[in-house]
Amino acid sequence: MDFHQTPVFPRGFRCASRNCGLKPTAKDLALFVSEVDATAAAVFTRNQFPGAPVILGRETIRGGVLRAIVANSKYSNVATGPEGIETARRMADAAAKEIGSDASKVLVSSTGVIGVRLPIETIEAGLVGMSRELVSDPIVGAEGIMTTDTHAKALSMTIPGSDATIAWVAKGSGMIEPNMATMLAFIFTDAQLDLRALGEALRDAVHVSFNMLSVDTDTSTSDTCAILANGLAGTVDAEGFAEALSFGCIRMTEMLARDGEGAEHLIRATVRGAASEDDARRVAKSLVNSPLVKTMVHGADPNVGRLLMAIGKCFDVRLDPGATDAWINGHPVVRGGRRVDFDDAAVRATLAAEEVDLDVSLGAGRASATAYGCDLTQAYIDENAAYYSS
Amino acid sequence: MDFHQTPVFPRGFRCASRNCGLKPTAKDLALFVSEVDATAAAVFTRNQFPGAPVILGRETIRGGVLRAIVANSKYSNVATGPEGIETARRMADAAAKEIGSDASKVLVSSTGVIGVRLPIETIEAGLVGMSRELVSDPIVGAEGIMTTDTHAKALSMTIPGSDATIAWVAKGSGMIEPNMATMLAFIFTDAQLDLRALGEALRDAVHVSFNMLSVDTDTSTSDTCAILANGLAGTVDAEGFAEALSFGCIRMTEMLARDGEGAEHLIRATVRGAASEDDARRVAKSLVNSPLVKTMVHGADPNVGRLLMAIGKCFDVRLDPGATDAWINGHPVVRGGRRVDFDDAAVRATLAAEEVDLDVSLGAGRASATAYGCDLTQAYIDENAAYYSS
Repeated sequence: MDFHQTPVFPRGFRCASRNCGLKPTAKDLALFVSEVDATAAAVFTRNQFPGAPVILGRETIRGGVLRAIVANSKYSNVATGPEGIETARRMADAAAKEIGSDASKVLVSSTGVIGVRLPIETIEAGLVGMSRELVSDPIVGAEGIMTTDTHAKALSMTIPGSDATIAWVAKGSGMIEPNMATMLAFIFTDAQLDLRALGEALRDAVHVSFNMLSVDTDTSTSDTCAILANGLAGTVDAEGFAEALSFGCIRMTEMLARDGEGAEHLIRATVRGAASEDDARRVAKSLVNSPLVKTMVHGADPNVGRLLMAIGKCFDVRLDPGATDAWINGHPVVRGGRRVDFDDAAVRATLAAEEVDLDVSLGAGRASATAYGCDLTQAYIDENAAYYSS
Repeated sequence: MDFHQTPVFPRGFRCASRNCGLKPTAKDLALFVSEVDATAAAVFTRNQFPGAPVILGRETIRGGVLRAIVANSKYSNVATGPEGIETARRMADAAAKEIGSDASKVLVSSTGVIGVRLPIETIEAGLVGMSRELVSDPIVGAEGIMTTDTHAKALSMTIPGSDATIAWVAKGSGMIEPNMATMLAFIFTDAQLDLRALGEALRDAVHVSFNMLSVDTDTSTSDTCAILANGLAGTVDAEGFAEALSFGCIRMTEMLARDGEGAEHLIRATVRGAASEDDARRVAKSLVNSPLVKTMVHGADPNVGRLLMAIGKCFDVRLDPGATDAWINGHPVVRGGRRVDFDDAAVRATLAAEEVDLDVSLGAGRASATAYGCDLTQAYIDENAAYYSS
């Protein structure tokens, strides 16, 4: 499966973005619109302090139909009490009015500082006229939802054997160990799917992609992943669609990991030979989440001890220490739980590459999983210690 | 309860340390000796790749009696296979021979690089004559087990209402989220206690101290905490002893957190109003383990959003978002799940202090717990990205 060189929207989808005045000059408001009703599904953060847009979004998505997504950056509208919910509703109303639809068909997302009142009047004024600026370039929408992302993120592909397209727009960077979804990921397709198939395909894709991503173990209060299918390209093979959806979600997950705050490397940890998929997922997550594994990648050191430590600290995972093997970028470094003699300089050299693969076999079964993360750098500390919340 | 200004050993305990040649010049070998048999208990790492000394130590401690602890730094003797166990046995033999005792009464500990063969001949030669250098200053022993610690760590106190003493010697720094014990902590007392009371008091003390410590979420393969009671001061009140033991273990935990790799601040997170102790422990650990909370302390920013995020990402903890309160260094910053208007500059100023207290009330019950951690700094990254494992 191949992604388009330049991302494009499926039929009937367009977007616009603007600086409406929340940030000094950068874009801070995005609008994504389908020209017809789209079947829609979404998953949200499991954080117990969800933002107002997440609380409202859970209500909106129950209808199973969306016409638009309106999203702002800079303020997340989290920990803002009942007034925050009211603000999110006003944001849906304003977007619905602008596109001539109903607020019940508009999903609201906000990302940025927590605990600050969202200046809704600024957003309401900013939305006026945006429907006249709609374009078919997904990057334009991605630009409106960036926070500490270093570049706007969008992807698209044609579903194999069909005339239908899927497009992904997302933002990530910090406070990223999504649970049910990533920070913000919006997916658009002109394939025609019923609500149940769409929801299942989304949950399956998120399970192996965004839910296996961690920049810093910190689960945001705003995570939202939504998919809109407007059906303009007709029906598609459900299995082919699901496969393409997962494929693109994994690629977007890699893009988000690679652009984690301060990151210089993408770390892909694959665990095989596990007794259960849950075991494999836990060990893979433990590897990409360990500060000592992350700094070892940053320092390009093939540190076998840190790999074994990060595997072994999964206390409840079934594994056989004497049957555990590990590889760094394909080079065997552990066999049967012991460090093997390897060419240190050669392995060290492979760690200079932007993508680093850590592979582990637990010798306990046949299940496997892959997690996605990044190295831990001075820049992460700089960015987050210098951040002022007010 | 007060600690001695200068730490001292209880009656009958002495120690020595040397550079035996594992490190270029710094001390790398320590010997702790009781002049009579001591009742002894220990807890070890839960990491599934325990080092050879931990495997042997579990066997040794079954006897319930120790005369000595021999410990080296620089190499941890982990992931070294059956030869590693043999090496650990030879280390116990050599120490037993030097002090005229039996290897079954010698606990072995090693800390340092993983996956490298321990040069046992160097240690055997280094032990010769050490029994003639024994002194009653615990700091001397602490110096022999340091790795990246910036200073040697020892404490002692008189058990209130008795003539007995407890002394603590420990090392920490990185790869520290002990589970059953900290990296290495050795505790000595001349109080007389039966094995069951000693073991129980140790487990209770570790539960609220070393097991609530996290520098970097990474659980070492060598964690060992042992206590030796030689009885030379006679019997003591068991409850008073247990209380003093916990008190000192908590203080030592704070010393280890404060000297975590790169740390500039001790973070103490106390959670009250939890539905269960387990819930309170999980939220407290989540706070001290969150990179965004750690960098917020480093940057002295009273970031309410990060506190709520770190509480709320404990998905399975029972809490009432609308009844959750939080304080930074005693200043209320969250009430009923919402940011309160607080004097930002005043709270920011308190974050300059070396000790930072984060307090949370979950409004879900009456259980509480405190966790101990440190801030995340450029120095942690520097130290661990520059570390070469071979």
